[in-house]
This record gives sequence, C-alpha cells and structure tokens, in this order.
Amino acid sequence: MTQVLDFAKRLIAAPSVTPATGAVFDAFESLLAPFGFEIKRFIRGDGAPGTPDAPVENLFAIRHGPPGSKHFAFAGHLDVVPPGQGWTTGAFEPEVRGDLLYGRGAVDMKGSIACMVDAVADIPADAGTISFIITGDEEGPALHGTRALIDFMAAAGHTPDLCLVGEPTSVHRLGDMMKIGRRGSLNIWLEVEGKEGHVAYPHLADNPIPKLVAMLAELDALVLDEGNDWFQPSNLEITDMEVGNPATNVIPSHARARLSIRFNDNHTGAELSALVTEIAERHGGTARPVISGEPFLTPLGEFSAIVAEAVKAETGIDPEPSTTGGTSDARFLRAVCPVIEFGLCNATMHKRDEAVAIEDLAVLARIYRRIALAALAR
Amino acid sequence: MTQVLDFAKRLIAAPSVTPATGAVFDAFESLLAPFGFEIKRFIRGDGAPGTPDAPVENLFAIRHGPPGSKHFAFAGHLDVVPPGQGWTTGAFEPEVRGDLLYGRGAVDMKGSIACMVDAVADIPADAGTISFIITGDEEGPALHGTRALIDFMAAAGHTPDLCLVGEPTSVHRLGDMMKIGRRGSLNIWLEVEGKEGHVAYPHLADNPIPKLVAMLAELDALVLDEGNDWFQPSNLEITDMEVGNPATNVIPSHARARLSIRFNDNHTGAELSALVTEIAERHGGTARPVISGEPFLTPLGEFSAIVAEAVKAETGIDPEPSTTGGTSDARFLRAVCPVIEFGLCNATMHKRDEAVAIEDLAVLARIYRRIALAALAR
Ligand SMILES: [Zn+2]
Ligand SMILES: [Zn+2]
Repeated sequence: MTQVLDFAKRLIAAPSVTPATGAVFDAFESLLAPFGFEIKRFIRGDGAPGTPDAPVENLFAIRHGPPGSKHFAFAGHLDVVPPGQGWTTGAFEPEVRGDLLYGRGAVDMKGSIACMVDAVADIPADAGTISFIITGDEEGPALHGTRALIDFMAAAGHTPDLCLVGEPTSVHRLGDMMKIGRRGSLNIWLEVEGKEGHVAYPHLADNPIPKLVAMLAELDALVLDEGNDWFQPSNLEITDMEVGNPATNVIPSHARARLSIRFNDNHTGAELSALVTEIAERHGGTARPVISGEPFLTPLGEFSAIVAEAVKAETGIDPEPSTTGGTSDARFLRAVCPVIEFGLCNATMHKRDEAVAIEDLAVLARIYRRIALAALAR
Repeated sequence: MTQVLDFAKRLIAAPSVTPATGAVFDAFESLLAPFGFEIKRFIRGDGAPGTPDAPVENLFAIRHGPPGSKHFAFAGHLDVVPPGQGWTTGAFEPEVRGDLLYGRGAVDMKGSIACMVDAVADIPADAGTISFIITGDEEGPALHGTRALIDFMAAAGHTPDLCLVGEPTSVHRLGDMMKIGRRGSLNIWLEVEGKEGHVAYPHLADNPIPKLVAMLAELDALVLDEGNDWFQPSNLEITDMEVGNPATNVIPSHARARLSIRFNDNHTGAELSALVTEIAERHGGTARPVISGEPFLTPLGEFSAIVAEAVKAETGIDPEPSTTGGTSDARFLRAVCPVIEFGLCNATMHKRDEAVAIEDLAVLARIYRRIALAALAR
C-alpha cells in the first residue's frame, strides 16, 4: 500500500494538463526504471500550443521475457483534463484526507498507472514480456498520442498479445464494470449556403435556414439501429447551430450546424458519413465528416475471463462487461490486439476534488498483477 | 434648379449617421427659416451612444394659414445609414458629376427634404397651414424619433389633415411608384432551454436543439395568408439561429433562433405574436415578440388622386400605388392622418455612391408644390 500510494502521489504532483510532456514522464520513468524496463520516450507534433498539432510526449517501455514468451501490455495516459476552479486543495498537490487521495488524475488515470507499476514490481522477469504504452495526449485531440506509439511499436516489432487499458471503468465499486468495447465516434459539420438579402424582399434572397432546419429535422428523426447484444443503440445528437446574423432585417447567407454520432458495430464511420452527406446534399447543403474512432468490441472469451477472474478474486465482484460511455485510446489499440479496459471508480473523473480510495489503489494493483500473470501464463 | 440643388448639397454636407443631432438640423433650419416657419427643435433619449436610447434630435416646423385652413404636412428624416466603404468621393462631400449629385442621403432622403423646402418657398402663406415633421432617427431604432414628434404635435394641438412622407419610392423613373401602405413588422426571439450533458450519455442530458428544429420546421411551414388586393402575402423568415457550443462532445443547454415577420393588414402584430408563442411553447420553448410596426393602408381615394395627378402633370407617368418594401415612419404617422409616401428613385439608397439625378430634384420639388397646393385647396 505504501508503495502504490507513493507512486500515485508522485505522478499527480507533476502537472500534466493535456497535451503533456516532460515532468510527468520523468516521474513515471523514475518509478518504472528500477524494474528492468527498456524505456523509449519521444515527442511528436510541432504546432503551436493550443493547436491539435502541439507537441505531445509518448513513452514505450518493455521488459522482455524468455524467447517465445507471451507479451502483455498495459496502456494508459499521463495527461489530465484541466483542473478547473474550486478545488479544496491544489489539483497538483496530492493530499490524503481520510481514506482518500485527492488530486487531478487520481482516478483518470495516474492512480491506475501507479497500480500498473506496482503490479509489475514483483512479477519475475521470466514470467513473460510486459510493456507499457503511455501517452501524454488522450484527453486532447490524440493526433500524436497512442497512434504514434502504435506506429513506433510496429516499426520496432513489438506486438502485444493482449492489452489492458487502465481507464476508470468502475462505477459504484471497484470491479463492478469492465469495458469490452466502445462505440465509434463521428462529428459532422453541416453547412447550407444561401443568398443574403433584406427580409422585406425575400424573393431577391435565398434563406439557407429553412433548408438546414429541414435537413436537421430529417437527421434527428433517423433511427440508426436498435442496439445489439453488446451495444446500446447508435445515437445522433445535434450539438451546435450557428448563423451569426445580428441584423433583424437581414436574411443571412450561411447557416451551419454540427452533429455528434456515437455508433455501435452495426455501422462504420464511412457508412454513416455517406448517409448524412446524402441527406445534407438532398437539402441543398454540404457535410464535412470527421471520424474520431471506429467502434471496437473484444467479444467475451479468454481475455474477459482473465480480467473477470482477477477482479472476482480480489473483490468478490463479477465485473459487468459493458460498451457504454465515451471513447478511449482503445479505439486505436484494437487494431493491434484484443483490448479490454478496466480501472478505478469514475465518479470524480474530470471533476473538481477528483479522488481515489487509497484501499482501491492497493486492490487494483493486485488485480492488475493477477491479470498480467494470467495473460502471460496462457 | 439652382436653389434645390444648393439645398440638397447643404443637407448632405452635414454628416448625420443615425441617430442625428445638431449640424444637419442647423442646416435644415437655416434653409427653412426664410419662409416664415415657426421652428421647434428638441432632443430625446439619454442613453449612451450606440444604445437604442441614444439622444436623437427632432424638428417640427409650422406656418399657419388663415383661420380654418387645411393643414398639410411633409414628413421625413435627416439621419442616414452609415456610408460604408468604397465611395468615389466623400460620402458627406456632395459632388456633382455629370447629371448626378452624389452623397449619402442624396435620395434617402435629404434630396427629398430639399425638394420639400424648395416646394414651399413660393407657396403663399395664405394657401393654408404647412408643417414639417422631421426626425433624426428613422434609420435607427426610431424609439425617440417620429413617435416623439407625434406626441409633441398632439400636445401642441397641431393635427395635419394629410401627410406626405418623402421616402424614395420611385423605382426605375421618378414618379413610377407611390406607397399607399406598408406591411407591419415583427421580430420574435425564440429560445429552448435544455440540460447540458456529454454526447456519450444522452439520457442524462436534454438536448434543446431537436425541439427548436421541430419548432422552426412548423413555423417555416406556416402560410399566413395569400395576400389581398393591396398587399403581397405576409412572410415569415428565420433570420438567426445560435447555440454557441464549441465542444463537439457536449450536448448544449440552450438553443435560440430569431424570426422576422412582415405582415399585411390581414393580421395584427399581437395576433401573430400569440400564434408564434403558442407554437414555441408547444415545442417546449419560449417566444419574445417585439412589434416594430403595424401595417398601414391609405385606401385609394382623394389623397392618392392628388399625388397621382401631381406626378402625372410633371412627369407624364401614372404612379403605381404599392405597399411593397420595408417599413417607414408612415407606420407611426398613420395614427394621425392619411399618409402617402412619394419620393426619389431608390436604386442607390443605402449603397455606396448614393446619387440623385439633378433634374429629378427640380421635378420632385414641382410635384411636391402641386401636392401641397392641391391638399390645401380641398
Ligand atoms: Zn482517461
Ligand atoms: Zn429613408
């Protein structure tokens, strides 16, 4: 307990609002180095701060087992969302009050990463190959984060057999939920161009708003699917509309809107992009889709059984396999090997006074150790 | 010709972007004073510049005829819309090039006002009572303009029998159109309040946009009427939509839109406000209507015949009686007495290089003189 709590505090104490570089990676490296890992750090992105291209740091660490070993990977992120206002104590000043450790990243996911390091600390090197896939850009645009790590691993010939992502998947109690999949995510920018004019002479103008309204009404009425065994129904939300016309007597020349679609594995991003584009164009507009991630599903099987047994052994709980919630870097890692997400309780993630139960850190470290050992022993 | 051109230049040379006070009224007063008018000027509004309550100047001038005389009023505005960019010469530096006089207000409506003054210059005082109802706030919010003049006239016991507004009603040739009515104007701000949330958890949020879209679709499909003998159909335009949500993964808490309705005398502003409010509320939103003006109609009759005969005598044209276009201060003056609008060609109004044909100034002054004399001789 002392060690994992100390690890978590040292990671939290390094401010790392997304995109993260530098100090928090120094801290992580100093935790992991004693356990015999080769550590490779690299920075990607050369844009100005605040742009999607801003520099981000990534770290890949590996400790090879004997030839022919299985390769198990822990994946996670050291960047955190901005702390916001109203913290009882400093967001980057880890503090224990009662049974809890407070600080930004306590559950999402510096606490989990501390557990991963603690887990490997007493796994013997001959148990197999273990790696860490750690990015500083999961909460941001994620352009140069886990994707760059996957490219690096491919080039270096490091391919895990199984990968566990440490996102805070537990809801009410540590162990009550694991994520075996996530929905895909797609944003679409819609625009209708018209012709500006005076409201007193509408025949000389072409108001783009009614076309956009009809387009949005049709899009909002879409039923994409009814869900399936593992996924809730795909969902389309209209998240923004914008005309920006201050003049009450002017018919505007442009109208814009934005959609967010979270979709299950009944669909692909490309198919949904085509569907929305067809509707937009039929109403005289245009659509610009940006696919953030395709859905992933690791069907119930050997890997989920390993996770469930480890959780059950340490907590007595059968974790519910779920595909709910937002996206995570599992959307990229799915292309490498089967991925499951399991981690701390998410009640305080992204909120002020984010906190983790100190006892949960100790339990999660033991769960992670069981998972790694079982994955390597297959 | 020399006099009316000089009058127009002197008015144009006084910058008077709405709301106008001071110099342009000094110029007008100096034109009119030689002709025996009592002139009353007053300023209304005590707000900061740029607010609807900013100070505006108004001027009422009257020359009484013999007891029992008819009272004929000229009405107009000395404020102008901002000149904008790209003028060949200064917008407030009147310049004759070829047959045209250039300058902001040349047709809307300092040129017309110059013609009014020129018209009365040789009408004998015993022809009847003539007045000028001149505001510095027609192009702006018009809160403290002609409305304040009407209050002043009522308090002073000055009630014209007929009123001619000098808006630029001619289209292709001076004399081809007069306005015997105008549509009413109504702006309505719509809002739907929802509950913010994350797009991955739509059941925890309440997206206001689909409600606003359904509301706008129903409003856009309304057929208010088919028009009538004198008015084109009433028309509803959606002029703005606004959510202002920069975050692609957030369901917003508010959605807003704005309507502009131009309506004929089949409707009142209150009735249309109630109709839209009912629809807005049925879709879970609210409506905030602001009535800019009720429609007016001066049915064809003695006054329109006076104007038509004067136009015909000077130009050979039968002016088309029309109710098209935007609003004017006739929407207020209609409450005092029958109103008709007639003035210069409007092709360049509110545009850069606004210009009037010098010949039109001379012809319009003669038309106005005929109208005044005929109105006083009834
Ligand atoms: Zn996270
Ligand atoms: Zn005007």
